[in-house]
This record gives sequence, structure tokens and C-alpha cells, in this order.
Amino acid sequence: MVLAKKALVTGAAGFLGSHLCRRLIADGYEVTGLDNLFTGTKSNIYDLLGNHRFSFVLHDVTQPFWGQFDEIYNLACPASPIHYQKNPVETIKSSVLGMMNMLDLALKTKARLLHTSTSEVYGDPLVHPQVETYWGNVNTIGIRSCYDEGKRCAETLCADYRREYGVDARMVRIFNTYGPNMHPKDGRVISNFIMQALSNEDITLFGDGSQTRSFQYCDDLVEAFRRYMTLDRDVIDAFVARHGLGAAVINTGNPGEYTIKQLAEETLRQIPESTSKLVYAPLPKDDPKRRKPDITLAKELLGWEPKVPLREGLAKTIEYFRRLA
Amino acid sequence: MVLAKKALVTGAAGFLGSHLCRRLIADGYEVTGLDNLFTGTKSNIYDLLGNHRFSFVLHDVTQPFWGQFDEIYNLACPASPIHYQKNPVETIKSSVLGMMNMLDLALKTKARLLHTSTSEVYGDPLVHPQVETYWGNVNTIGIRSCYDEGKRCAETLCADYRREYGVDARMVRIFNTYGPNMHPKDGRVISNFIMQALSNEDITLFGDGSQTRSFQYCDDLVEAFRRYMTLDRDVIDAFVARHGLGAAVINTGNPGEYTIKQLAEETLRQIPESTSKLVYAPLPKDDPKRRKPDITLAKELLGWEPKVPLREGLAKTIEYFRRLA
Repeated sequence: MVLAKKALVTGAAGFLGSHLCRRLIADGYEVTGLDNLFTGTKSNIYDLLGNHRFSFVLHDVTQPFWGQFDEIYNLACPASPIHYQKNPVETIKSSVLGMMNMLDLALKTKARLLHTSTSEVYGDPLVHPQVETYWGNVNTIGIRSCYDEGKRCAETLCADYRREYGVDARMVRIFNTYGPNMHPKDGRVISNFIMQALSNEDITLFGDGSQTRSFQYCDDLVEAFRRYMTLDRDVIDAFVARHGLGAAVINTGNPGEYTIKQLAEETLRQIPESTSKLVYAPLPKDDPKRRKPDITLAKELLGWEPKVPLREGLAKTIEYFRRLA
Repeated sequence: MVLAKKALVTGAAGFLGSHLCRRLIADGYEVTGLDNLFTGTKSNIYDLLGNHRFSFVLHDVTQPFWGQFDEIYNLACPASPIHYQKNPVETIKSSVLGMMNMLDLALKTKARLLHTSTSEVYGDPLVHPQVETYWGNVNTIGIRSCYDEGKRCAETLCADYRREYGVDARMVRIFNTYGPNMHPKDGRVISNFIMQALSNEDITLFGDGSQTRSFQYCDDLVEAFRRYMTLDRDVIDAFVARHGLGAAVINTGNPGEYTIKQLAEETLRQIPESTSKLVYAPLPKDDPKRRKPDITLAKELLGWEPKVPLREGLAKTIEYFRRLA
């Protein structure tokens, strides 16, 4: 009898964590899911709670956690500005202390670790599209810094534990991702538009709505996680050396660009009963600039690229929000 | 009888910490000095150890520390690449966990806190001279990142504890500083040149030696610390608001620029018995670019600017190194 591989997922009850747990169970893993339920919710993992290969532990990653795992997936951190600005100190602690605790666990148990970083480490980028070797443009003392700098510091910890202690730490920088289990009030454009359309509120476009965004469907991202973690360490090491990277870090996102207006129109097309209208408002001064991943490295290392078209991913997301309402 | 004010200094046995402790005692404070003696050394504070108003505590700031103080000065962190690259994980932990512990202490005891950040938060700057509102150009995953990103993260913690919990945290970004009690092997240009001249080794200039640096004498910096900490909180708050800063942060450094060749020549002039010669080597690719502080804000807030000329500061530093040898 072959023992099942054991995985630990932090942030298991969050949007991405819940999808990853489901995927790991489908792949034959025994999964332990940690969450402090600050922004995650058990409703995201109801279907898993009775599964004998899943264990949920109510735990805050700022505290050490002990267990023997083959793979650790570190996803815990409030990720929406609406959430993290409510509790900035806890946000930066969950990034930094959570990272230290997971790296210490990986070090002691020789587990493989995947850390989920973010495109926010590029800040308000001066380079388009963003490549992994771009250092970013981030404010250290602003109201978004708790997230951005916490995530940057977590990357540094990953890189240094790898160099100094040999921890097999791998990182992804995740760009804008959507799908079922998103928080309906997280303030992101996709959840905003769907919620507005479902409740027949007007959909507000800023400027003429021609600014672009890219959208990665959650299943594509989880596929990248899994491919990354199946690679042998020497493959990763050779890749890092070949590209002169300071750590095993790749962008994961969907480089396809859509205008905000296209997104709004597609949302309304898929919710034909909605009486919402598009309305226009002046462009705010701090409207996020374009951010778009360069995924050349992920393609090379993982043989991966996003597969789910916006239309299809949006349909599944709308279905989720309909059930929620 | 008026009770003496109580100050806590972390990194008390380091280069800057030792000067600050001496100054605080001269100013009438009771001083508690913490140091883990990783890069600091008791020889920097021998003269204080018998002083009844000074207490040395061998303590690592990554662990909580409790005590009742009016003012906390957070200086603990290996600051020379030679030191911090030996132990990058401990370096970033001393910045980040040390900061959390000191902020938590300030929060619980309502102490005023001064955190010493660094010009390294600007990284390899694209803006000259550096102003406080410049966001910097820093690699998250390189071999210097443990210091740079640890210090950036500490700034974010300061800013967020101030905004979220009202901690009276003030920050300085310290530019290149020198003086007695510098570590003779910390790899900085001033200690290198003096040590080479004193031991009659040739002094190596890279390129033609025309690249410039600025040098702040330690006493000037300590004067800035003291002025900053005597200001009432409402003065600081008004200043932060007036300048649209996200936190109470000012540059402290000496904006005077000297070429590396001028520094070498002045060093040799002050060590006339030296048989060292100037020798030239090709400019390495990663020779640090020019970094120069804009100190407009410090002048406005503190009525402060550096007073000690390089010639005079260098003489005191050479005297120190002579005694050491």
C-alpha cells in the first residue's frame, strides 16, 4: 500500500485556498487546511469538511504550526484592499510571520514549499508587461503598503531561507484572478460588476471604460501550482541559475487584455434579465494603471499557459454568485 | 526631585548605539541598552558599564522585551553587507521582529519611538538626490535584500502602527555615517582606507576615483535623533500632514559630496607616516551608484544640518583606529 502524500494549505478557506484543497484531494493527497477565518469562510469548503482526507484546523499563521507534510502551500493573507486596510498590522503579520512559520516548518521537515506572492510586489510598475526581474515601484509607508511590503518581505525570506538553509521554496507572483468563491464584497471589478448586474444596480465605468485589465481564471492558476510542485528540485535549481534569478519565482496570470467596458458588456450579456445600465463617471486620479504579466518563464518551466477563456470563466463565476444570492 | 527620563536603546553596543547611549546619559537620561553582541561589541561601551545610569542587557530583539520607558530608540540590525550577508535570515528577522517587538512595547507603554531606517530603502535610486517621497528601486530576492527589504518592512510596520494604533513612531532614513566605534572590518570605504593607510597597504581606487559619496559624522546624526525626539507629537503630526507623508519619516545625512580620490588623499594626509600608495583598478560593474540625501525636511522640522566637516570627523575616526591598532 502506498501512503498518500500529505499537503498543508494555509488560507484553506479563502477563494484560492478552497480550490487548491479540492484539487489536491482530487489528486489523491491528504490535505490539512489552515485558516483563521478572518476573510476566508467555511462555506467555501463545506463540501470538504466531511471528507476523510481533509482536515480543517482553525489556526492563525502568525503562530507556529507543526506537522509532517510533503508539500506546503502558503496562501494565507487578506488579499483585497477592502479587507487588508481594515487591519493593516495583522495583514503584514500574516504575510511575514506566516512566511517565517511556514519556512521554519519546511526547514525542519524538509517539505517542499510553494509561496503565493503577488503582482502587487511590482506596485505601480514602470515596466510593461512585468517580467520577474523587474524590481517594482512600491511605497513603503502608504495605506496599501501593509500588503505590498508584507508580500515583498515574504519573498525575501523565501529567497534567503533557500540560499542560507537550502529550503526548497518556490514562489509564484499571482496576477488578477477570479472565479467562484471570490468574496462578493471584496471590491474587485469582476465581483462588483456581477453583483451590480444581479441586483439591477447601474454599472459604473470610469472614464470611457477603455482601460484594460487581465483576468486569470482560478482553475488555470491551480493547475500552475500543481505543475510547479511536481517538478524536481534540480530542475528548479537549473532554471533559477539559467535565468539568473535570485530565487525560484515565476509570474502566473492571464496576459489577455480586456477593456473594462468589454467586461461590463459581457457580464450583462450573461445576465440577460438584469435591468442594469452602464453609466460613466470621471476617471479617479488613482485608478490603477494597467498591469499585465509576462508569463514567458512560467511557459518555459511549467509548459503552462491559461486555458479558460473569460467568457467561460465568467459564466461559472456568475453561476456561483447566483447561487449565493 | 524630578525623576530622570528613561530611554531604551536597541543595538546599544553597535557603532551608532554606543554614541547615542553616551549622549542620552549626558542629557540626564537613565538608559537601558540592549544588544545581542552579534555585530556590536562591549568594547564600544566599556566606559558606560560602570555608570549607575546605564544598564546593559544582553538580549536579541527578535524576542519580546518588557520595560517602562519614555523613549525607545530602535537601532538594532547588522548594517554592513559583510555582516548581514553572513546571516541573512537573522538580519531580516532582527529588522522585522525587532520592529514588531519595539512597536508592541511602545503601544503598551505609550512610549515615544524612534526607528532608524536607512537610505538603502531607496535601493539603487533613479532619483537624485533622494527625497522622502521617492519609493525606491529595490530587488526583493537578491543577496542584499535581507537588509533592504527588512528595513522597508520595518518602515511599513511603523507607519501602520502609527495609523492603526496611534503609536508615536518617528523614523529617520540614515545615509552613510562614520566615526569612532565603526567596525574596522565592516567593508565601508572610510574604515577600509584608514585601516589600509595605518597598515601601510596600498589603497585601491576603482575607476579614476572620481565617483562621489557623502559622509555624515556620527555626532551630527545623534544630534538629529535628539532634536527629533524632543518635538511634541502634534508638531510631528502637523508636519506629516503638511507634506503629505504617509508617516513621520525624514532623511538624515550629509549632502556634501566628495570624490573617493579626495577621501583617500585626505586620509593619507592625516596619516603622514603611512607608506601606502594609491593604486587603481577597473570599476566593478556593481560599484554602488551615487547616493545623496535631500535633507530639506530635516532642516525644516529639526532646524538641523550636519556641522562636522569631513576633515575634522576623519581626524577623530583615525584617532580611534590608531588606538584600536
